[in-house]
Amino acid sequence: MPEIKNYIAVVDLGGTKILSAIINQNSEIISIAKKSTKSKKKNETIFDRIIQTIEEALAAKNLNSSQLDGIVLGIPGSLNPETRIVNLAPNLGLKNVNVAEPIEKHFNTKVLIENDANLGTLGIYHFEGKEKCKNLIALFVGTGVGAGIIINGELYRGKNFSAGEIGHIKVREKGYKCGCGNYGCLETEASRTAITRIINEEIKKGKKSLITKLTEDTKVIKSGILAQAIKKKDKVTIKAVNYAAEELGLVTGNLINMFDFDCVVFAGGVMEAIGNFMLPVIKEKAKETALKSNYKNTKIFISHLKDDAALLGGYALFKNS
Amino acid sequence: MPEIKNYIAVVDLGGTKILSAIINQNSEIISIAKKSTKSKKKNETIFDRIIQTIEEALAAKNLNSSQLDGIVLGIPGSLNPETRIVNLAPNLGLKNVNVAEPIEKHFNTKVLIENDANLGTLGIYHFEGKEKCKNLIALFVGTGVGAGIIINGELYRGKNFSAGEIGHIKVREKGYKCGCGNYGCLETEASRTAITRIINEEIKKGKKSLITKLTEDTKVIKSGILAQAIKKKDKVTIKAVNYAAEELGLVTGNLINMFDFDCVVFAGGVMEAIGNFMLPVIKEKAKETALKSNYKNTKIFISHLKDDAALLGGYALFKNS
Repeated sequence: MPEIKNYIAVVDLGGTKILSAIINQNSEIISIAKKSTKSKKKNETIFDRIIQTIEEALAAKNLNSSQLDGIVLGIPGSLNPETRIVNLAPNLGLKNVNVAEPIEKHFNTKVLIENDANLGTLGIYHFEGKEKCKNLIALFVGTGVGAGIIINGELYRGKNFSAGEIGHIKVREKGYKCGCGNYGCLETEASRTAITRIINEEIKKGKKSLITKLTEDTKVIKSGILAQAIKKKDKVTIKAVNYAAEELGLVTGNLINMFDFDCVVFAGGVMEAIGNFMLPVIKEKAKETALKSNYKNTKIFISHLKDDAALLGGYALFKNS
Repeated sequence: MPEIKNYIAVVDLGGTKILSAIINQNSEIISIAKKSTKSKKKNETIFDRIIQTIEEALAAKNLNSSQLDGIVLGIPGSLNPETRIVNLAPNLGLKNVNVAEPIEKHFNTKVLIENDANLGTLGIYHFEGKEKCKNLIALFVGTGVGAGIIINGELYRGKNFSAGEIGHIKVREKGYKCGCGNYGCLETEASRTAITRIINEEIKKGKKSLITKLTEDTKVIKSGILAQAIKKKDKVTIKAVNYAAEELGLVTGNLINMFDFDCVVFAGGVMEAIGNFMLPVIKEKAKETALKSNYKNTKIFISHLKDDAALLGGYALFKNS
């Protein structure tokens, strides 16, 4: 178990933005730097941009890279944390590549990599749920739906390090086509993309919705816009969001029946924006679906950590590595 | 970890029969005694019958109870293995009762209790899957559908000791009413009871089936009868069994997506009788449902242990207790 004497850097690599944080030995995030993931410069790689954000975050606190005990990279894709090879991260354009080595070489410090949902789950477990959640599943609802699993206080990764692909469980026999090639995945029914599709279908049918006034392009409805529409009691939005919440509640109930989890935690952009509206619907459906014997004592709640979940998860991963 | 110097007794308590085995220190089942669960004698309790079968199994090998290092009871119901209270075992008529104490008092030896699916899973893991299955789920398909889960080589029980209630995950929005009070549970779609119902519906619609010739009462179709009908290429039976297999395959695919298990093992009366017919359908549907990244390296197979699974699981539980 490596001691953190000075600082570690945790990088949350998203499809849109790269977020680098410097965290001290007391798990305090003392500096954050942000960059868009895609560069406008021709010869600049994603590795260059990762290095730049880390250096910017260090510089903001007058630190230098020799003060780093290690770096953790959170990656949206399938990977092997042991070989540090990213098998596929479509949003980053990475395939079968060791992402740790170039960073390690530059900073001359230990680099760990982990799936981003797993990092977020570690953060939620260690900083929000450790006392009450020995066995926990965290569901991240945003553009897609992902999950991370803690069993007996340890991150559960599965044989191919691919556990948590809950977005691709089939929930509708005749559902919409999913990015994975299959039909009727949870992601096509309960993500922000799904809610957006349902709202657009209703508008197309002639239903009136405030969404058309709140955003210029209804094809990409941000979570904040959904929150505004709900606040203004827009029926079309409320119906679509309730549908997604019921699907999530059904899956929650089934998870409780199968795994009798202590805690089911919701996180991600959609949950940050409209989780308080969705949670009662999720809970009601979960309670209806689960056996009384299993639902008993289950805690279902929304994470308060937001972006910090993955950053603090990186800290926890490094400390326990 | 208690040493087994002499023998242990493992009792598999079913709704129909009580099976008691004597197992030696080399995990060999050296004696078995059987009794129907329900007594015809007025004042005879289930505890009396458990004691009798253990004593019969001992006597058959000229052993006496002082040679028992311990007893394990496998119970079809919800229970707490720590307090040894059975919360509810409907088929045994037990509710909120300590089943271990009367047996312990009689034999003056340590008594452990465990859910029967968990015992079967422990048997499968330790005697069929230990080398290849670090993380395993065993699905028991019979009158109902149950499961047991092994994570990192350990039985996973969940917070209320109720993990594995896979028979009650909701798989059909508008399904049949289940014994649990809910609708469209896996158990109403993929158990022997479900297959029986589907066959009867077809017969009622006027479809011709050999089932009516193979059994007098089509309301309770035993697994052996299903095997005979399949062998004789009875279309109605094959269609019903394929439907159940597809449901199991879908759930298998979803489990692989979520938990990236090393092994998914099928067991129970239906699988013993017609598992070889069902397995290709299950695998095909699972492969279609699961992400390639997760399905990779998953072993899906039928247990060969039959009744021995729970008995050997009792041995493993005792040895590791």
